[in-house]
Amino acid sequence: MSTLALAFDLGGTELRGALVERSGDVIARVSAPTMSGAGSEAVIGQIIALAGTLLAEHPQAKVVGIGMCAPGPLDPKAGIVIGPPTLAGWHNVPLIDILSRQFGLPVRLENDANAAALGEWRFGAGRGSGSLVFVTVSTGIGGGVVADGHIYHGRRGLAAEIGHMTITGEGERCFCGAVGCFEAVASGTALGRRATKLTTAGDGSLLRRLSNDGDVSARHVVEAARAGDVSALELVAAEAKWLGIGFTNLLHLYSPDLIVMGGGLSNGFDLLAPTIRATVEQRAMQAYRDVPIVPAELGDRAGLVGAASLILWEGEPGTALAMVQDDETKSGAGGKAGAREASQG
Amino acid sequence: MSTLALAFDLGGTELRGALVERSGDVIARVSAPTMSGAGSEAVIGQIIALAGTLLAEHPQAKVVGIGMCAPGPLDPKAGIVIGPPTLAGWHNVPLIDILSRQFGLPVRLENDANAAALGEWRFGAGRGSGSLVFVTVSTGIGGGVVADGHIYHGRRGLAAEIGHMTITGEGERCFCGAVGCFEAVASGTALGRRATKLTTAGDGSLLRRLSNDGDVSARHVVEAARAGDVSALELVAAEAKWLGIGFTNLLHLYSPDLIVMGGGLSNGFDLLAPTIRATVEQRAMQAYRDVPIVPAELGDRAGLVGAASLILWEGEPGTALAMVQDDETKSGAGGKAGAREASQG
Repeated sequence: MSTLALAFDLGGTELRGALVERSGDVIARVSAPTMSGAGSEAVIGQIIALAGTLLAEHPQAKVVGIGMCAPGPLDPKAGIVIGPPTLAGWHNVPLIDILSRQFGLPVRLENDANAAALGEWRFGAGRGSGSLVFVTVSTGIGGGVVADGHIYHGRRGLAAEIGHMTITGEGERCFCGAVGCFEAVASGTALGRRATKLTTAGDGSLLRRLSNDGDVSARHVVEAARAGDVSALELVAAEAKWLGIGFTNLLHLYSPDLIVMGGGLSNGFDLLAPTIRATVEQRAMQAYRDVPIVPAELGDRAGLVGAASLILWEGEPGTALAMVQDDETKSGAGGKAGAREASQG
Repeated sequence: MSTLALAFDLGGTELRGALVERSGDVIARVSAPTMSGAGSEAVIGQIIALAGTLLAEHPQAKVVGIGMCAPGPLDPKAGIVIGPPTLAGWHNVPLIDILSRQFGLPVRLENDANAAALGEWRFGAGRGSGSLVFVTVSTGIGGGVVADGHIYHGRRGLAAEIGHMTITGEGERCFCGAVGCFEAVASGTALGRRATKLTTAGDGSLLRRLSNDGDVSARHVVEAARAGDVSALELVAAEAKWLGIGFTNLLHLYSPDLIVMGGGLSNGFDLLAPTIRATVEQRAMQAYRDVPIVPAELGDRAGLVGAASLILWEGEPGTALAMVQDDETKSGAGGKAGAREASQG
């Protein structure tokens, strides 16, 4: 059996684990509802239990390390989860320390948007590109930037907090306290809110019929737009315009080779794309207009395989892969990844 | 005499040349009004003439290469000036090729804001920091990002086009065609325009007296604010608020160790700072609020010494400095810069 990483994607609602090959293939997956109100010890217990399940199912697995992603803010270098709003009782939890002691394996930690960016870059929509900006649009908006083969971290790993980039002076106040955040006007939540405002329970509109006369969600808007509903199509166009304004900023600021859009709303990417594109063409300076904007390819695997790649693909001496490769080189089986290592080292 | 670089800062109005030491000290300077309407050949002739003047004055100078900065868009890797709006007749000029053939020396090219960012990082307000965002606020707004010891280039060297980041939906249309660009609301030009609108020729206001009843400029606003003029102080506060909104975005997007503000308007930095700071405290997420925002230190030398450092400080084998250091190492005089090379290599 080939070299594997244990990978975990710790979300506010779901905890996912997997065994991932160097190719990015997921050979086994498990998940559990995150005990997000129960504090860090309980959740770490869940991680250990899921690891046990995976390893018991694959007793021959040659696991060389653990790649983990979690919601920010977190410090990837120090390996500390600082205090994600979606996980109660997590305050400066030294997750790398805890897990590496538990398993006796190297552990790498990354925030979830960065891990997904890395996953899409190495195995998904960004394969072969030199750099990309990954944007996840769902409840909120998050992002990750890969440039020169690395995640762009910035001070304390806090770069690419793109959801809280101010792009307008209008709209509802963001949960962060400011007005005009990209997230506040362009997230799936914002789209759902606009759809809910536009309609009323019992008005017979398709949007309200899809939502059973409850609050309308972004998913309902996309569904209604697919059915040709005029209000929904207008809402989609307005949403795409906000996304286009935000993406134009990302082009001007990071100048990536491409932008990859993931998250729940990327299910409606084909509907959003024409107005996103038109907005970018209208607002971006000439030299940035031909940059591809594409949907993510890996869905909810992006974070897992990106996190795994932190163990399996990093080139620095002393990482799990480098150690494995030293062994393999000694036994005369360097292979393709070995060549990649050499070119990255 | 120590190792030197020839450095040039090609601006739309002035062409500046210098001999720069590895320490960042400028040992000789020359300048000429740029023949900006006369096409690239004429201006390259000016560069060659200024180089001749500098070298004639310092016949013993051990010049190891030429560092050059020019207005964007340009491609620093390919060494091509693509077509700056302030220089007529420059279209895809292979400046590195031309100058290296002319002088038989290694030539490096960088856009002016990036070179200034590098200058401030290596020799100015950002000395010792791991990363910085440099923002130049004058007629327009430009920027450069240094992270992990390098300029953040992005595709075709086009990253950090921060002047055309959309931050609002209001204000006058930017020359780029969009509404709400950082530059359109927060440049010195925008400040002057607001001051001009607020007053009328002959109204006896201090702003109009300073401008001799002509259009009011940012410089007049700063001068009037220093004298305690209430209208000017309000204009300064409004300007600082826009700067604070833009700087907050830069914190969220790049997470630098510090922001350095240069350009003409940085002459009023002390007046602007309190409201910039208050705006950042109000709008930035907690983890970014303690990042220092400081004025540039090098004034109009920043681009020159930054460009020179491309020749004198870069660590890649094969660059001018590496070659010189190979010689020095052979003769047993590696020194401090040699140690830095080793740690970067």
